[in-house]
Amino acid sequence: MPRSAIWKSIADTLRQEVAQGLYPPGSRLPTEAELSARFGVNRHTVRRALADLSEGGVVHARRGAGVFVTARPTDYPLGRRVRFHQNVMASGRTPSRRLTRLETRAPTGVEAEALGLVEGESVHVVEGVSLVDGQPVAVFRSVFSAQRFPGLLDALRGQNSVTAALAACGLADYTRAETRITAKSASAVLALNLQIAEGAPILRSVATNIDGSGRPVEFGTTWFAGDRVTLTVSPDLAGG
Amino acid sequence: MPRSAIWKSIADTLRQEVAQGLYPPGSRLPTEAELSARFGVNRHTVRRALADLSEGGVVHARRGAGVFVTARPTDYPLGRRVRFHQNVMASGRTPSRRLTRLETRAPTGVEAEALGLVEGESVHVVEGVSLVDGQPVAVFRSVFSAQRFPGLLDALRGQNSVTAALAACGLADYTRAETRITAKSASAVLALNLQIAEGAPILRSVATNIDGSGRPVEFGTTWFAGDRVTLTVSPDLAGG
Repeated sequence: MPRSAIWKSIADTLRQEVAQGLYPPGSRLPTEAELSARFGVNRHTVRRALADLSEGGVVHARRGAGVFVTARPTDYPLGRRVRFHQNVMASGRTPSRRLTRLETRAPTGVEAEALGLVEGESVHVVEGVSLVDGQPVAVFRSVFSAQRFPGLLDALRGQNSVTAALAACGLADYTRAETRITAKSASAVLALNLQIAEGAPILRSVATNIDGSGRPVEFGTTWFAGDRVTLTVSPDLAGG
Repeated sequence: MPRSAIWKSIADTLRQEVAQGLYPPGSRLPTEAELSARFGVNRHTVRRALADLSEGGVVHARRGAGVFVTARPTDYPLGRRVRFHQNVMASGRTPSRRLTRLETRAPTGVEAEALGLVEGESVHVVEGVSLVDGQPVAVFRSVFSAQRFPGLLDALRGQNSVTAALAACGLADYTRAETRITAKSASAVLALNLQIAEGAPILRSVATNIDGSGRPVEFGTTWFAGDRVTLTVSPDLAGG
Protein backbone atom coordinates (compact mmCIF):
# COMPACT_ATOMS: atom_id res chain seq x y z
CA MET A 1 0.00 0.00 0.00
CA PRO A 2 1.78 3.16 -1.17
CA ARG A 3 -0.29 5.32 1.27
CA SER A 4 1.20 3.54 4.27
CA ALA A 5 4.72 3.88 2.87
CA ILE A 6 4.64 7.67 3.22
CA TRP A 7 4.16 7.85 6.98
CA LYS A 8 6.53 4.92 7.46
CA SER A 9 9.21 6.70 5.49
CA ILE A 10 8.66 9.91 7.47
CA ALA A 11 8.83 7.95 10.73
CA ASP A 12 12.07 6.27 9.60
CA THR A 13 13.60 9.59 8.64
CA LEU A 14 12.75 11.18 11.98
CA ARG A 15 13.96 8.08 13.83
CA GLN A 16 17.32 8.35 12.08
CA GLU A 17 17.56 12.04 12.85
CA VAL A 18 16.87 11.35 16.52
CA ALA A 19 19.49 8.57 16.52
CA GLN A 20 22.01 10.92 14.91
CA GLY A 21 21.43 13.46 17.66
CA LEU A 22 19.77 16.06 15.43
CA TYR A 23 16.99 16.12 18.00
CA PRO A 24 18.65 15.34 21.33
CA PRO A 25 16.82 13.64 24.22
CA GLY A 26 14.40 16.03 25.86
CA SER A 27 14.17 18.37 22.87
CA ARG A 28 10.93 19.27 21.12
CA LEU A 29 10.31 18.02 17.60
CA PRO A 30 9.10 20.53 14.99
CA THR A 31 5.33 21.09 15.08
CA GLU A 32 2.93 19.09 12.95
CA ALA A 33 2.54 22.13 10.70
CA GLU A 34 6.31 22.39 10.25
CA LEU A 35 6.66 18.67 9.54
CA SER A 36 3.74 18.81 7.08
CA ALA A 37 5.48 21.62 5.23
CA ARG A 38 8.86 19.89 5.32
CA PHE A 39 7.63 16.55 3.98
CA GLY A 40 4.90 17.97 1.74
CA VAL A 41 2.16 15.81 3.29
CA ASN A 42 -1.00 16.54 5.21
CA ARG A 43 -1.14 16.60 9.00
CA HIS A 44 -2.91 13.27 9.16
CA THR A 45 0.13 11.58 7.62
CA VAL A 46 2.49 13.41 9.97
CA ARG A 47 0.36 12.34 12.92
CA ARG A 48 0.51 8.71 11.79
CA ALA A 49 4.32 8.92 11.64
CA LEU A 50 4.50 10.54 15.08
CA ALA A 51 2.17 7.85 16.50
CA ASP A 52 4.57 5.22 15.18
CA LEU A 53 7.55 6.92 16.86
CA SER A 54 5.55 7.27 20.05
CA GLU A 55 4.59 3.57 20.02
CA GLY A 56 8.28 2.71 19.79
CA GLY A 57 9.09 4.97 22.74
CA VAL A 58 11.20 7.35 20.64
CA VAL A 59 9.03 10.40 21.32
CA HIS A 60 6.17 11.30 23.60
CA ALA A 61 3.52 14.01 23.42
CA ARG A 62 3.00 16.43 26.28
CA ARG A 63 -0.48 17.86 26.15
CA GLY A 64 -0.41 21.43 24.90
CA ALA A 65 3.37 21.52 24.71
CA GLY A 66 4.29 19.42 21.69
CA VAL A 67 6.11 16.19 20.91
CA PHE A 68 9.39 15.54 22.71
CA VAL A 69 12.28 13.17 22.14
CA THR A 70 12.25 10.63 24.95
CA ALA A 71 15.50 10.47 26.86
CA ARG A 72 16.93 6.95 26.84
CA PRO A 73 16.64 5.95 30.49
CA THR A 74 19.67 4.70 32.36
CA ASP A 75 19.48 1.04 33.34
CA TYR A 76 19.99 0.57 37.05
CA PRO A 77 20.40 -3.10 38.05
CA LEU A 78 19.20 -4.08 41.52
CA GLY A 79 21.65 -6.85 42.35
CA ARG A 80 23.40 -7.92 45.50
CA ARG A 81 25.84 -5.04 45.14
CA VAL A 82 24.04 -1.89 44.13
CA ARG A 83 26.56 0.83 43.38
CA PHE A 84 25.40 3.96 41.60
CA HIS A 85 28.81 4.87 40.23
CA GLN A 86 29.56 1.45 38.73
CA ASN A 87 26.01 1.01 37.42
CA VAL A 88 26.20 4.24 35.46
CA MET A 89 29.75 3.68 34.22
CA ALA A 90 28.65 0.26 32.95
CA SER A 91 26.07 1.99 30.75
CA GLY A 92 28.77 4.13 29.16
CA ARG A 93 27.71 7.33 30.91
CA THR A 94 29.34 9.67 33.38
CA PRO A 95 28.07 9.51 36.94
CA SER A 96 28.41 12.30 39.46
CA ARG A 97 26.97 13.08 42.84
CA ARG A 98 26.27 16.26 44.76
CA LEU A 99 25.93 15.96 48.53
CA THR A 100 23.39 18.46 49.82
CA ARG A 101 23.25 17.58 53.50
CA LEU A 102 25.48 15.88 56.02
CA GLU A 103 24.21 15.89 59.57
CA THR A 104 23.85 13.84 62.72
CA ARG A 105 20.46 13.62 64.42
CA ALA A 106 18.06 11.35 66.30
CA PRO A 107 16.60 8.61 64.07
CA THR A 108 12.94 8.39 63.14
CA GLY A 109 11.15 5.28 64.36
CA VAL A 110 11.40 3.67 60.93
CA GLU A 111 15.13 4.38 60.70
CA ALA A 112 15.88 3.06 64.20
CA GLU A 113 14.03 -0.15 63.41
CA ALA A 114 15.69 -0.63 60.02
CA LEU A 115 19.17 -0.16 61.45
CA GLY A 116 18.45 -2.05 64.68
CA LEU A 117 19.40 0.92 66.87
CA VAL A 118 18.77 1.08 70.59
CA GLU A 119 17.21 4.04 72.41
CA GLY A 120 19.48 7.09 72.46
CA GLU A 121 21.62 6.19 69.44
CA SER A 122 21.84 8.78 66.66
CA VAL A 123 22.23 8.53 62.90
CA HIS A 124 24.44 10.18 60.32
CA VAL A 125 22.26 11.47 57.50
CA VAL A 126 23.61 11.80 53.98
CA GLU A 127 21.44 13.51 51.40
CA GLY A 128 22.29 14.33 47.83
CA VAL A 129 21.53 14.29 44.16
CA SER A 130 22.86 11.69 41.70
CA LEU A 131 23.54 12.84 38.16
CA VAL A 132 24.14 11.07 34.88
CA ASP A 133 25.94 13.09 32.21
CA GLY A 134 25.20 16.16 34.31
CA GLN A 135 21.43 15.55 34.44
CA PRO A 136 19.90 14.86 37.85
CA VAL A 137 18.37 11.36 37.92
CA ALA A 138 17.84 10.72 41.61
CA VAL A 139 17.64 12.29 45.04
CA PHE A 140 18.71 10.12 47.95
CA ARG A 141 18.77 10.06 51.72
CA SER A 142 20.76 7.42 53.58
CA VAL A 143 21.16 6.97 57.30
CA PHE A 144 23.91 5.10 59.15
CA SER A 145 24.53 4.34 62.81
CA ALA A 146 26.60 7.27 64.13
CA GLN A 147 27.94 5.07 66.90
CA ARG A 148 29.22 2.43 64.52
CA PHE A 149 30.68 4.83 61.92
CA PRO A 150 31.78 7.89 63.92
CA GLY A 151 34.07 9.19 61.14
CA LEU A 152 31.64 8.71 58.24
CA LEU A 153 30.67 12.33 57.63
CA ASP A 154 34.30 13.48 57.75
CA ALA A 155 35.21 10.75 55.29
CA LEU A 156 32.40 11.90 53.01
CA ARG A 157 33.58 15.51 53.16
CA GLY A 158 36.84 14.38 51.57
CA GLN A 159 35.19 12.64 48.62
CA ASN A 160 31.56 11.78 47.96
CA SER A 161 31.51 8.01 47.48
CA VAL A 162 29.57 6.27 50.24
CA THR A 163 31.34 2.99 49.45
CA ALA A 164 34.77 4.62 49.89
CA ALA A 165 33.67 6.46 53.04
CA LEU A 166 32.41 3.22 54.60
CA ALA A 167 35.68 1.52 53.63
CA ALA A 168 37.56 4.35 55.39
CA CYS A 169 35.43 3.53 58.46
CA GLY A 170 36.53 -0.10 58.31
CA LEU A 171 33.62 -1.64 56.37
CA ALA A 172 35.17 -3.44 53.42
CA ASP A 173 31.99 -4.69 51.79
CA TYR A 174 28.24 -4.54 52.05
CA THR A 175 25.37 -6.02 50.06
CA ARG A 176 21.75 -5.21 49.34
CA ALA A 177 19.30 -7.05 51.58
CA GLU A 178 15.97 -5.78 50.31
CA THR A 179 14.64 -3.15 47.97
CA ARG A 180 11.04 -1.94 48.09
CA ILE A 181 9.84 -0.06 45.04
CA THR A 182 6.77 2.05 44.57
CA ALA A 183 5.62 4.91 42.34
CA LYS A 184 4.95 8.40 43.64
CA SER A 185 4.26 11.87 42.30
CA ALA A 186 7.07 14.41 42.59
CA SER A 187 6.60 16.93 45.40
CA ALA A 188 7.61 20.53 44.71
CA VAL A 189 10.98 20.04 46.44
CA LEU A 190 11.76 16.80 44.60
CA ALA A 191 10.69 18.35 41.30
CA LEU A 192 13.07 21.25 41.89
CA ASN A 193 16.00 18.96 42.73
CA LEU A 194 15.37 16.64 39.80
CA GLN A 195 14.47 19.44 37.37
CA ILE A 196 11.18 17.79 36.47
CA ALA A 197 7.57 18.95 36.65
CA GLU A 198 5.78 18.89 39.99
CA GLY A 199 3.58 15.77 40.02
CA ALA A 200 5.77 13.92 37.49
CA PRO A 201 6.11 10.18 38.18
CA ILE A 202 8.85 9.10 40.59
CA LEU A 203 10.24 5.64 41.34
CA ARG A 204 10.83 5.49 45.07
CA SER A 205 13.14 2.77 46.31
CA VAL A 206 13.58 2.02 50.02
CA ALA A 207 16.50 -0.30 50.65
CA THR A 208 18.64 -1.80 53.36
CA ASN A 209 22.28 -2.72 52.92
CA ILE A 210 23.87 -5.25 55.26
CA ASP A 211 27.38 -6.30 56.17
CA GLY A 212 28.81 -9.81 55.87
CA SER A 213 27.19 -10.87 59.14
CA GLY A 214 23.76 -9.68 58.06
CA ARG A 215 23.78 -6.59 60.26
CA PRO A 216 22.15 -3.52 58.64
CA VAL A 217 24.65 -0.77 57.82
CA GLU A 218 22.68 1.60 55.59
CA PHE A 219 19.00 2.43 55.33
CA GLY A 220 18.34 4.50 52.27
CA THR A 221 15.54 6.02 50.25
CA THR A 222 16.07 7.03 46.65
CA TRP A 223 13.65 8.98 44.49
CA PHE A 224 14.38 8.38 40.79
CA ALA A 225 12.95 10.56 38.01
CA GLY A 226 10.57 8.07 36.38
CA ASP A 227 11.58 8.75 32.80
CA ARG A 228 15.34 8.80 33.41
CA VAL A 229 15.95 5.48 35.10
CA THR A 230 14.81 1.90 34.56
CA LEU A 231 15.36 -0.36 37.55
CA THR A 232 16.22 -3.84 36.34
CA VAL A 233 15.93 -7.11 38.24
CA SER A 234 17.53 -10.31 36.99
CA PRO A 235 17.35 -13.29 39.33
CA ASP A 236 20.77 -14.52 38.18
CA LEU A 237 22.40 -11.17 38.75
CA ALA A 238 20.51 -10.56 41.97
CA GLY A 239 21.55 -13.89 43.38
CA GLY A 240 25.12 -13.76 42.07
CA MET B 1 10.27 18.50 76.92
CA PRO B 2 6.55 18.47 77.75
CA ARG B 3 5.75 20.51 74.60
CA SER B 4 6.94 17.71 72.33
CA ALA B 5 4.99 15.12 74.30
CA ILE B 6 1.67 16.67 73.23
CA TRP B 7 2.04 16.20 69.48
CA LYS B 8 3.59 12.78 70.03
CA SER B 9 0.64 11.69 72.11
CA ILE B 10 -1.81 13.01 69.48
CA ALA B 11 0.13 11.21 66.76
CA ASP B 12 0.06 7.98 68.77
CA THR B 13 -3.67 8.29 69.36
CA LEU B 14 -4.42 8.84 65.68
CA ARG B 15 -2.06 6.01 64.71
CA GLN B 16 -3.97 3.64 66.99
CA GLU B 17 -7.30 4.78 65.60
CA VAL B 18 -6.09 4.17 62.06
CA ALA B 19 -4.80 0.72 63.08
CA GLN B 20 -8.15 -0.08 64.67
CA GLY B 21 -9.92 0.78 61.44
CA LEU B 22 -11.67 3.89 62.78
CA TYR B 23 -10.25 5.68 59.75
CA PRO B 24 -10.03 3.06 56.99
CA PRO B 25 -7.45 3.19 54.16
CA GLY B 26 -8.35 5.90 51.67
CA SER B 27 -10.57 7.83 54.08
CA ARG B 28 -10.04 11.47 54.99
CA LEU B 29 -8.94 12.40 58.50
CA PRO B 30 -10.83 15.17 60.30
CA THR B 31 -9.60 18.66 59.40
CA GLU B 32 -6.90 20.48 61.36
CA ALA B 33 -9.61 22.65 62.88
CA GLU B 34 -11.59 19.60 63.99
CA LEU B 35 -8.51 17.91 65.44
CA SER B 36 -7.51 21.14 67.23
CA ALA B 37 -10.93 21.28 68.83
CA ARG B 38 -10.92 17.59 69.72
CA PHE B 39 -7.50 17.60 71.39
CA GLY B 40 -7.70 21.15 72.77
CA VAL B 41 -4.44 22.24 71.15
CA ASN B 42 -3.49 24.82 68.55
CA ARG B 43 -3.15 23.97 64.86
CA HIS B 44 0.61 24.08 64.99
CA THR B 45 0.59 21.11 67.38
CA VAL B 46 -1.91 19.23 65.21
CA ARG B 47 0.25 19.87 62.17
CA ARG B 48 3.31 18.51 63.98
CA ALA B 49 1.37 15.31 64.81
CA LEU B 50 0.14 14.95 61.22
CA ALA B 51 3.68 15.48 59.92
CA ASP B 52 4.82 12.63 62.15
CA LEU B 53 2.09 10.33 60.79
CA SER B 54 2.94 11.39 57.26
CA GLU B 55 6.66 10.68 57.82
CA GLY B 56 5.72 7.18 58.91
CA GLY B 57 3.60 6.68 55.80
CA VAL B 58 0.36 6.38 57.76
CA VAL B 59 -1.31 9.37 56.10
CA HIS B 60 -0.62 11.68 53.19
CA ALA B 61 -1.83 15.17 52.37
CA ARG B 62 -3.51 15.93 49.08
CA ARG B 63 -3.24 19.59 48.27
CA GLY B 64 -6.56 21.35 48.80
CA ALA B 65 -8.33 18.10 49.68
CA GLY B 66 -7.13 17.17 53.16
CA VAL B 67 -5.16 14.45 54.87
CA PHE B 68 -5.91 10.85 53.88
CA VAL B 69 -5.17 7.47 55.41
CA THR B 70 -2.67 5.71 53.18
CA ALA B 71 -3.83 2.32 51.97
CA ARG B 72 -1.36 -0.37 52.99
CA PRO B 73 0.10 -1.43 49.67
CA THR B 74 0.29 -5.11 48.75
CA ASP B 75 3.82 -6.48 48.70
CA TYR B 76 4.67 -8.06 45.39
CA PRO B 77 7.98 -9.99 45.45
CA LEU B 78 9.94 -10.14 42.20
CA GLY B 79 11.61 -13.51 42.56
CA ARG B 80 12.43 -16.28 40.14
CA ARG B 81 8.79 -17.39 40.17
CA VAL B 82 6.50 -14.40 39.99
CA ARG B 83 2.91 -15.54 40.45
CA PHE B 84 0.25 -12.95 41.12
CA HIS B 85 -2.16 -15.33 42.78
CA GLN B 86 0.36 -16.81 45.22
CA ASN B 87 1.94 -13.43 45.96
CA VAL B 88 -1.38 -11.96 47.02
CA MET B 89 -2.51 -15.04 48.96
CA ALA B 90 0.80 -14.91 50.85
CA SER B 91 -0.10 -11.41 52.05
CA GLY B 92 -3.38 -12.70 53.46
CA ARG B 93 -5.56 -11.07 50.81
CA THR B 94 -7.88 -12.34 48.15
CA PRO B 95 -6.61 -12.19 44.58
CA SER B 96 -8.84 -12.17 41.53
CA ARG B 97 -8.39 -11.47 37.86
CA ARG B 98 -10.65 -10.21 35.10
CA LEU B 99 -9.59 -10.98 31.53
CA THR B 100 -10.59 -8.14 29.21
CA ARG B 101 -9.12 -9.26 25.91
CA LEU B 102 -8.05 -12.54 24.34
CA GLU B 103 -6.94 -12.29 20.74
CA THR B 104 -4.39 -13.50 18.23
CA ARG B 105 -2.57 -10.96 16.09
CA ALA B 106 0.76 -10.10 14.46
CA PRO B 107 3.43 -9.17 17.02
CA THR B 108 4.95 -5.70 17.35
CA GLY B 109 8.69 -5.51 16.69
CA VAL B 110 9.44 -5.41 20.41
CA GLU B 111 7.25 -8.46 21.08
CA ALA B 112 8.74 -10.49 18.23
CA GLU B 113 12.25 -9.76 19.49
CA ALA B 114 11.42 -10.52 23.13
CA LEU B 115 9.85 -13.89 22.24
CA GLY B 116 12.41 -14.73 19.54
CA LEU B 117 9.72 -15.10 16.87
CA VAL B 118 10.47 -15.45 13.19
CA GLU B 119 8.75 -13.48 10.41
CA GLY B 120 5.11 -14.46 9.98
CA GLU B 121 4.53 -15.93 13.44
CA SER B 122 1.65 -14.50 15.43
CA VAL B 123 1.05 -13.96 19.13
CA HIS B 124 -1.75 -14.70 21.55
CA VAL B 125 -2.54 -11.56 23.52
CA VAL B 126 -3.98 -11.75 27.02
CA GLU B 127 -5.10 -8.53 28.65
CA GLY B 128 -6.78 -8.08 31.99
CA VAL B 129 -7.06 -6.47 35.36
CA SER B 130 -5.68 -7.94 38.60
CA LEU B 131 -7.59 -7.23 41.78
CA VAL B 132 -6.80 -7.56 45.47
CA ASP B 133 -9.80 -7.79 47.78
CA GLY B 134 -11.89 -6.57 44.86
CA GLN B 135 -9.83 -3.43 44.26
CA PRO B 136 -8.01 -3.18 40.93
CA VAL B 137 -4.24 -3.04 41.51
CA ALA B 138 -2.82 -3.73 38.07
CA VAL B 139 -3.57 -3.88 34.37
CA PHE B 140 -1.53 -6.37 32.36
CA ARG B 141 -0.87 -7.40 28.79
CA SER B 142 1.03 -10.60 28.04
CA VAL B 143 1.93 -12.10 24.69
CA PHE B 144 2.82 -15.71 23.88
CA SER B 145 3.89 -17.47 20.71
CA ALA B 146 0.65 -18.65 19.05
CA GLN B 147 2.59 -21.35 17.22
CA ARG B 148 4.03 -22.80 20.40
CA PHE B 149 0.84 -22.61 22.48
CA PRO B 150 -2.03 -23.05 20.00
CA GLY B 151 -4.58 -23.93 22.70
CA LEU B 152 -3.67 -21.18 25.16
CA LEU B 153 -6.65 -18.87 24.64
CA ASP B 154 -9.12 -21.77 24.86
CA ALA B 155 -7.44 -22.92 28.06
CA LEU B 156 -7.74 -19.38 29.44
CA ARG B 157 -11.44 -19.23 28.58
CA GLY B 158 -11.99 -22.14 30.96
CA GLN B 159 -10.26 -20.50 33.94
CA ASN B 160 -8.15 -17.38 34.14
CA SER B 161 -4.83 -18.53 35.56
CA VAL B 162 -2.00 -18.10 33.06
CA THR B 163 0.10 -20.64 34.96
CA ALA B 164 -2.67 -23.27 34.71
CA ALA B 165 -3.34 -22.46 31.04
CA LEU B 166 0.33 -22.86 30.19
CA ALA B 167 0.38 -26.16 32.10
CA ALA B 168 -2.59 -27.30 30.02
CA CYS B 169 -0.49 -26.46 26.95
CA GLY B 170 2.33 -28.68 28.24
CA LEU B 171 4.52 -26.10 29.97
CA ALA B 172 5.03 -27.37 33.49
CA ASP B 173 7.16 -24.52 34.82
CA TYR B 174 8.55 -21.15 33.87
CA THR B 175 10.69 -18.58 35.66
CA ARG B 176 11.29 -14.84 35.52
CA ALA B 177 14.30 -13.85 33.43
CA GLU B 178 14.28 -10.09 33.72
CA THR B 179 12.04 -7.35 35.04
CA ARG B 180 12.42 -3.72 33.99
CA ILE B 181 10.67 -1.21 36.20
CA THR B 182 9.92 2.41 35.58
CA ALA B 183 7.43 5.04 36.76
CA LYS B 184 4.79 6.55 34.49
CA SER B 185 1.70 8.72 34.77
CA ALA B 186 -1.67 7.02 34.32
CA SER B 187 -3.27 7.61 30.93
CA ALA B 188 -7.03 8.13 30.84
CA VAL B 189 -7.65 4.48 29.88
CA LEU B 190 -5.35 3.11 32.61
CA ALA B 191 -6.88 5.46 35.16
CA LEU B 192 -10.34 4.19 34.26
CA ASN B 193 -9.31 0.53 34.56
CA LEU B 194 -7.47 1.04 37.83
CA GLN B 195 -10.03 3.45 39.28
CA ILE B 196 -7.38 6.06 39.99
CA ALA B 197 -6.96 9.69 38.89
CA GLU B 198 -5.60 10.40 35.43
CA GLY B 199 -1.92 11.29 35.81
CA ALA B 200 -1.57 9.33 39.08
CA PRO B 201 1.77 7.52 39.45
CA ILE B 202 2.05 4.06 37.91
CA LEU B 203 4.74 1.39 38.31
CA ARG B 204 5.29 -0.15 34.92
CA SER B 205 7.02 -3.51 34.82
CA VAL B 206 8.16 -5.12 31.58
CA ALA B 207 9.19 -8.73 32.07
CA THR B 208 10.15 -11.88 30.27
CA ASN B 209 9.44 -15.38 31.55
CA ILE B 210 11.49 -18.30 30.26
CA ASP B 211 11.18 -22.07 30.28
CA GLY B 212 13.75 -24.48 31.72
CA SER B 213 15.89 -24.27 28.59
CA GLY B 214 16.02 -20.46 28.72
CA ARG B 215 13.59 -19.98 25.85
CA PRO B 216 11.20 -17.02 26.29
CA VAL B 217 7.58 -18.08 26.80
CA GLU B 218 5.86 -14.89 27.96
CA PHE B 219 6.53 -11.24 27.36
CA GLY B 220 4.41 -9.10 29.62
CA THR B 221 3.82 -5.54 30.66
CA THR B 222 2.07 -4.74 33.92
CA TRP B 223 0.91 -1.33 35.05
CA PHE B 224 0.52 -1.24 38.85
CA ALA B 225 -1.34 1.53 40.70
CA GLY B 226 1.60 3.22 42.46
CA ASP B 227 -0.02 3.47 45.87
CA ARG B 228 -1.49 -0.03 45.92
CA VAL B 229 1.54 -2.21 45.28
CA THR B 230 5.12 -2.29 46.51
CA LEU B 231 7.45 -4.36 44.34
CA THR B 232 10.03 -6.03 46.55
CA VAL B 233 13.41 -7.42 45.55
CA SER B 234 15.44 -9.65 47.84
CA PRO B 235 18.60 -11.16 46.39
CA ASP B 236 18.15 -14.35 48.39
CA LEU B 237 14.57 -14.82 47.28
CA ALA B 238 15.30 -13.74 43.72
CA GLY B 239 18.17 -16.17 43.42
CA GLY B 240 16.44 -19.02 45.24
